[in-house]
Amino acid sequence: MGDKNKDMNPNITNEQKYVYYFGGKKADGVAEMKSLLGGKGANLAEMVNLGLPVPPGFTITTEVCTYYYANNYSYPKSLESEIKAAIKKIEIEMGAEFGSPTNPLLLSVRSGARASMPGMMDTILNLGLNEEAVQGLIAKTGNERFVYDSYRRFVSMYGDVVLGLKPQSKDDIDPFEEILEAKKHARGVTLDVELTAQDLKELVAEYKAAIKKITGHDFPENPWEQLWGSVGAVFNSWMNERAIVYRKLNNIPEEWGTAVNIQSMVFGNLGGTSGTGVAFTRDAATGDNYFYGEFLMNAQGEDVVAGTRTPYPIIELEAIDKKSYDGLLDIRKTLEEHYRDMLDVEFTIQEGKLYMLQCRVGKRTAFAAIKIAVDMVEEGLISPKEALLRIEPDQLNQLLRPVFDLKAKNEAIKKGDAITKGLNAGPGAATGRVVFNAEDAVAWKSRGEKVVLVRIETSPEDIAGMNASEGILTSRGGMTSHAALVARQMGKVCVAGCGSLIIDYKARSFKVEGKDFLIKEGDYISIDGSTGEVINGNIPTKPSEVIEVLVTKTLKPEDALIYQMYKKIMDWADEYRVLRVRTNADQPDQSANAIAFGAEGIGLCRTEHMFFGEGKIEPMREMILANNVDARKKALAKLLPLQREDFEGIFRVMDGKPVTIRTIDPPLHEFLPHDEAGQEEVAKELGISAKLVKERVESLHEFNPMLGFRGCRLGLIFPEITEMQARAIFEATVNVKKEGKTVLPEVMIPLVGHTKEFKHQEQVVRSVAEAVMRETDVKFEYLVGTMIEIPRGAITANEIAEAAEFFSFGTNDLTQTTLGLSRDDSGKFLPEYVSRDIYPVDPFVAIDRVGVGYLMKKAVKKGRKSRPNIKLGICGEHGGEPSSVEFCHLLGLNYVSCSPYRVPVARLAAARAAIQFPEIMKLGKKKDKKNDKK
Amino acid sequence: MGDKNKDMNPNITNEQKYVYYFGGKKADGVAEMKSLLGGKGANLAEMVNLGLPVPPGFTITTEVCTYYYANNYSYPKSLESEIKAAIKKIEIEMGAEFGSPTNPLLLSVRSGARASMPGMMDTILNLGLNEEAVQGLIAKTGNERFVYDSYRRFVSMYGDVVLGLKPQSKDDIDPFEEILEAKKHARGVTLDVELTAQDLKELVAEYKAAIKKITGHDFPENPWEQLWGSVGAVFNSWMNERAIVYRKLNNIPEEWGTAVNIQSMVFGNLGGTSGTGVAFTRDAATGDNYFYGEFLMNAQGEDVVAGTRTPYPIIELEAIDKKSYDGLLDIRKTLEEHYRDMLDVEFTIQEGKLYMLQCRVGKRTAFAAIKIAVDMVEEGLISPKEALLRIEPDQLNQLLRPVFDLKAKNEAIKKGDAITKGLNAGPGAATGRVVFNAEDAVAWKSRGEKVVLVRIETSPEDIAGMNASEGILTSRGGMTSHAALVARQMGKVCVAGCGSLIIDYKARSFKVEGKDFLIKEGDYISIDGSTGEVINGNIPTKPSEVIEVLVTKTLKPEDALIYQMYKKIMDWADEYRVLRVRTNADQPDQSANAIAFGAEGIGLCRTEHMFFGEGKIEPMREMILANNVDARKKALAKLLPLQREDFEGIFRVMDGKPVTIRTIDPPLHEFLPHDEAGQEEVAKELGISAKLVKERVESLHEFNPMLGFRGCRLGLIFPEITEMQARAIFEATVNVKKEGKTVLPEVMIPLVGHTKEFKHQEQVVRSVAEAVMRETDVKFEYLVGTMIEIPRGAITANEIAEAAEFFSFGTNDLTQTTLGLSRDDSGKFLPEYVSRDIYPVDPFVAIDRVGVGYLMKKAVKKGRKSRPNIKLGICGEHGGEPSSVEFCHLLGLNYVSCSPYRVPVARLAAARAAIQFPEIMKLGKKKDKKNDKK
Repeated sequence: MGDKNKDMNPNITNEQKYVYYFGGKKADGVAEMKSLLGGKGANLAEMVNLGLPVPPGFTITTEVCTYYYANNYSYPKSLESEIKAAIKKIEIEMGAEFGSPTNPLLLSVRSGARASMPGMMDTILNLGLNEEAVQGLIAKTGNERFVYDSYRRFVSMYGDVVLGLKPQSKDDIDPFEEILEAKKHARGVTLDVELTAQDLKELVAEYKAAIKKITGHDFPENPWEQLWGSVGAVFNSWMNERAIVYRKLNNIPEEWGTAVNIQSMVFGNLGGTSGTGVAFTRDAATGDNYFYGEFLMNAQGEDVVAGTRTPYPIIELEAIDKKSYDGLLDIRKTLEEHYRDMLDVEFTIQEGKLYMLQCRVGKRTAFAAIKIAVDMVEEGLISPKEALLRIEPDQLNQLLRPVFDLKAKNEAIKKGDAITKGLNAGPGAATGRVVFNAEDAVAWKSRGEKVVLVRIETSPEDIAGMNASEGILTSRGGMTSHAALVARQMGKVCVAGCGSLIIDYKARSFKVEGKDFLIKEGDYISIDGSTGEVINGNIPTKPSEVIEVLVTKTLKPEDALIYQMYKKIMDWADEYRVLRVRTNADQPDQSANAIAFGAEGIGLCRTEHMFFGEGKIEPMREMILANNVDARKKALAKLLPLQREDFEGIFRVMDGKPVTIRTIDPPLHEFLPHDEAGQEEVAKELGISAKLVKERVESLHEFNPMLGFRGCRLGLIFPEITEMQARAIFEATVNVKKEGKTVLPEVMIPLVGHTKEFKHQEQVVRSVAEAVMRETDVKFEYLVGTMIEIPRGAITANEIAEAAEFFSFGTNDLTQTTLGLSRDDSGKFLPEYVSRDIYPVDPFVAIDRVGVGYLMKKAVKKGRKSRPNIKLGICGEHGGEPSSVEFCHLLGLNYVSCSPYRVPVARLAAARAAIQFPEIMKLGKKKDKKNDKK
Repeated sequence: MGDKNKDMNPNITNEQKYVYYFGGKKADGVAEMKSLLGGKGANLAEMVNLGLPVPPGFTITTEVCTYYYANNYSYPKSLESEIKAAIKKIEIEMGAEFGSPTNPLLLSVRSGARASMPGMMDTILNLGLNEEAVQGLIAKTGNERFVYDSYRRFVSMYGDVVLGLKPQSKDDIDPFEEILEAKKHARGVTLDVELTAQDLKELVAEYKAAIKKITGHDFPENPWEQLWGSVGAVFNSWMNERAIVYRKLNNIPEEWGTAVNIQSMVFGNLGGTSGTGVAFTRDAATGDNYFYGEFLMNAQGEDVVAGTRTPYPIIELEAIDKKSYDGLLDIRKTLEEHYRDMLDVEFTIQEGKLYMLQCRVGKRTAFAAIKIAVDMVEEGLISPKEALLRIEPDQLNQLLRPVFDLKAKNEAIKKGDAITKGLNAGPGAATGRVVFNAEDAVAWKSRGEKVVLVRIETSPEDIAGMNASEGILTSRGGMTSHAALVARQMGKVCVAGCGSLIIDYKARSFKVEGKDFLIKEGDYISIDGSTGEVINGNIPTKPSEVIEVLVTKTLKPEDALIYQMYKKIMDWADEYRVLRVRTNADQPDQSANAIAFGAEGIGLCRTEHMFFGEGKIEPMREMILANNVDARKKALAKLLPLQREDFEGIFRVMDGKPVTIRTIDPPLHEFLPHDEAGQEEVAKELGISAKLVKERVESLHEFNPMLGFRGCRLGLIFPEITEMQARAIFEATVNVKKEGKTVLPEVMIPLVGHTKEFKHQEQVVRSVAEAVMRETDVKFEYLVGTMIEIPRGAITANEIAEAAEFFSFGTNDLTQTTLGLSRDDSGKFLPEYVSRDIYPVDPFVAIDRVGVGYLMKKAVKKGRKSRPNIKLGICGEHGGEPSSVEFCHLLGLNYVSCSPYRVPVARLAAARAAIQFPEIMKLGKKKDKKNDKK
């Protein structure tokens, strides 16, 4: 101690207060003091301040924990006197005396950290009992069995926790358990409650003998010794193995420390007028506004948890103890009005008197979170802003996705039908018959079958088959693999990267590593894209009301309560968000869905997907196989009207909303079949030799296609492709404009790393635009911009912005290149990386702010420096992930773009970010939403 | 003009001097005024100042050119009077009068830019002739034919250049050519010289008629009009198509403009006592110190160039005109002493009087450059520093590499034996019989055959075969492909990425796109790794003297003049360079070679190459195929002694020099055979099923292996591999230390993107080091550091440097990730990118300073911030490329590391960088070489 220690912790002074009393009418602490008092202590204090019945007690602050570890397991000098004073106050309030042989005050000692760490640290109950006090308590309560039961529990708890007799390994046996089992065996009973007062008394003696034998010391009879031992044990438990692991997993800093709560014991097991229970102020599963809980009479908390007796619904308490029931209803109201949230409470009734032992904000399902938040706004308890902050954006999926009948699913799992687990790549529930290729999916669907497409991986060739399927299951690829990406865009259920599947295309079956399942073509499976579960058999699903209203239009809004809830949240979100939200879509129907979900434009239209449509793949292949510019142009001429038609469809739907179209991006070999049969077919179709096709496929083969001949590199070497695409875009613009619609095309050049690449492609696009205007005599506006998706693009953003009118961050590829990590190949090690906390989250799910974010920041800064009004967006998959949307808000981007079904999530995430960070980072400019129509 | 123009070019004032006279004893200009006077004008002035005989004349400055283009093709007001005054001075000096009908002064008008642009702009000779002057000149010279020949040349040149009659397209015919051909046809002659004076006189008339007919104007008879027309034509030629293209190709700024040189004509075609010639002050091919040149009597410059007459060696001039010859020898001495370099001169002898028309620093071969630089130091003409700046580092290759017998090679090419051209990936010349796989290479070599290994691409499995070959030829892969990289490290000749080869492994032959060659196994081919040429047949080669002295030790240094020259250069380089130079080597013999070439340590020892050695691949495969940690450890235990032995060999050779060893880096599938036969063999060897091997290979397959499961990711998931490698390193350290050698191991963790990755691997390495010290009771020093080779590593260098003791930039991978560019796949577009100047140089050859360099700078800055004395190096292939070495010097790195045969190049490049940039960039710290022993 002394001056040196003062320097170490400036808060510790002579006037330092270490003990916060709660009891009577007013507590020393309040709810806001969680850092100092821990969650439990702060809420106990708050309940006292609200006038609720709380057994009196006090909290030893977390600073004592810090002191304890910083000072070789010792306590501040003044602690002892503060504790003594606090216990005196409890004694007065409870009319009992700590250590009294006739009227003993019993205490509980519990840990209580800033964040909840359930079951991680130790608790001691019934502290203060000894041979003398036992007699006094028997005299006082007249209940010998109760007293000895309490005593033997205390001795074993103290032995385990304070004296360290708890086994360190699971293989060892707790000495007290051993004695208890022997006793029950001797008495010929199976349950603890069947033991008599005498049995329990004997147990106490046997426990104490065991303690003496193992530790060499007697069990402490002195209550003060018991108390200090227990306080030390709770502080020590902050550093036990379990607690350390838990903190690591939950990112709880070690420095926080725990508080210790010492409280007068109350007993729910003193007979028929005593009881105990837990309750939620609203239904934690459905969010419904009624008092939801369970209780047991003549029981202690652990009896409710242990499941040996079945507790009763809280409503039944009214008949048994109306006063306590009414008291609870009042308390429910008081707490909800005060905390303005749904709470989880614990209570005990001791001989007809109600005590509150705990209250905290209650955990709830996604659905309940939404319902409670919306209801509480209606009830005037919270503001819409607060409601938005209480709904995790991903919880919205609950409202959008088909879900399994939960009971049926749980039964199937119980029955052993769980096959395996993969990545929850496309949320929702799907059931169908297994098919192993895209053609079969289309064929089976056409004859009315529901199918699940199972592939090692998918490729652009599979798109029609994916569209025909209820869900897609792959054994390879991550959260942003082709399958996952396209599934989300289509709104399909997808479980991806399910590494344990061993798929045999030839045999049309798959098995699972280390399991007996053999699933054959035509068998039913069910996949849960929200959890990644794959289950054998046909589990019934139900569709989302929101989808029925907005997409399938099979339900009227006025009949859809869930839709109405959704609508309210979205309206609030739109009021607060600064970021605009666009969608990634390449088809008119996808675009229409996206608009239904609130998309304000298309942020990424991938033109290459279009080439797989009916009648388009053939000229595309002809183009790729062309030997010279003329042959290529001939094939492109066939593609032009087809692609123009695609754009017309999209422009019509998007009337008045900007549409960002990316010129061709993927390596050309993706458009050619890789198997001999397919190659022969193509050769036949095009009237060339199969050998030539094979040679071309081989010459297009790449070691690292992700870093290969793709993106603007294609357009640079074959400018006629960009030319055709630009012409299709602009001719479609003119045609749809003539229909009286407003068309706002934005042409986006992919994979730009050098401003000269961009300028070359920009020149091609602008020349075509001018030509089309000249030819049609129709003027139109358009933008030319680029994706920032490789580090060099970000680094030279100032140069690129001199020519580019907008940037769209392609954070999928930017993550791959910045981290040197192929998303499709990361399955072998990335999960391990995440579980070891090297990356706290999969960087393909949430933007890696340190690495990728650094380059984004640079690009924003440099881009704005060259072109202050440059439009900035993101169209990587991160655009629909809440923490990434928040980051985009912080960067001051103009918009995020995500798959149609993520649009509501992005809108909510954007609103939350705007509420939490009203002042966006300096490098971002505050945008006037109204002026950002294009 | 007026104030506004003054503002535009502050140099243009009333006192502005636009015309610089040269003649008499003193010129207005000097050699240093190249920006103002152009190269030609400045050197003419310098020659006058040196007292050399130069026909008098003057230079119109480049500023007039700038003015001309800035002011709508007009001239500064004072120009006319300055020109008139200058011409007056020429008239006085030459005793003739411009425009005089009796004693006319004839002039030449030539362009002369700051940088030489040969043949790009226009020239007019014999200006001042007209119908009157012709008569005067005939009277004066008595040589009618000469005069009319001069006149008709002037008229046609003027017509072409000034009046714009030169055809714009190659398909059109020059009108003057047409008339000339008709005349020769009419006269029944074939050569111009066979035409008579009368013929030439007629030609003049016909030329003039043609001019009148085409332009509608008469040919200008007024010499002043001729002069102004010519000056304008020269300025206009600065913006002609050819000149613009040339400037773009050679990075010459348009703003430089050209000067115009107007000079009195002298004639070498006035009879037997006149002549003309060109000479180099030393042999431009060999560098030998003798006067080298050619001349023709009674001829003009163009006759020497045209090749219609064969010029004589300059030595023969002594017999014909000793005075002029001696004059030239004197001038040679004067010029070399003055310019202190080898010069290229043009001279004319007019009736026995010698005139110098041009002098400039002479172009030379690499060999000559080296020899001249070294000789001039010996001669006291230049300092060693200057000598180093005159030798391009790559020119050193000339001294190190085997070369073809040039005559034999040229004959083969003339004969049509040139097959095709690829990338000059591993310099030198190799001849041998074609084999198509590594096994054959080894087998053929063992029976005494010289072979060239021809592969589509090479892989680590081919290493033994590559080593057995004289050279390697591949059809895929760039300058840093596996083949190129390994070849350079081995010192093998390599031509890579030869895209036109169509290799048929089955038929054991290759053909060439669009050519008739079919080369079969066993046929001889010759490949030139310095030029990329592939030639049919067996062209004799000769080895390098330096290699014979240093590596094969088949020649004594005192017998090797070329070696002695090499030694001098290297000694000078070592004196000036700040950067240390290490080598990339994984074998003792490679290491020994590298030391012979001056390597001061190993900067990159790739452990994976070792696994392909005798008896190592089997346990390596066993390790990869292991199902669990125990099986893996069993296999690793077999590898441990083998790998330890490898390290012992290297440590012994490197005694006292640091050795950086990289832990395993490549994806594991590289160690398994990809063909079924190979897989079956492995299965048999290891006693497991072929199916299992196949499944494992398939499960290890990656879409983008470059971004996949490799580098520290392997070590993180399988720490036992890192453990084994660390143990092999440290046990080898102890063993070699016990032999009395100094061992300085540096363990390098590859592909680190997150500091936690590094810390994990560092921990593994340090634990093993401690264990080995404990077990052996031998203390040793070692470092643990990392490669910076992905952008995130550079971005978070501050965090990584908290733990890492050194960084080595892996610029191959850093370039791949920063540019999003797979080096092995870039062959389809990168050459086009370079030829279009998107990247001025292949970024895999020279560091892209803007993109990759930005991240390197950040990493250096951030790394030094966390750890001021962090050791910084580079071990990518860029480490041996001169401009990249310069950049590393600018960054203040401690060392570069390159393949053994590049070490001399790197030493020279480092010295040149140190001489040119004595103050390295602020972010680099000046290093004390002496203190950087480790």
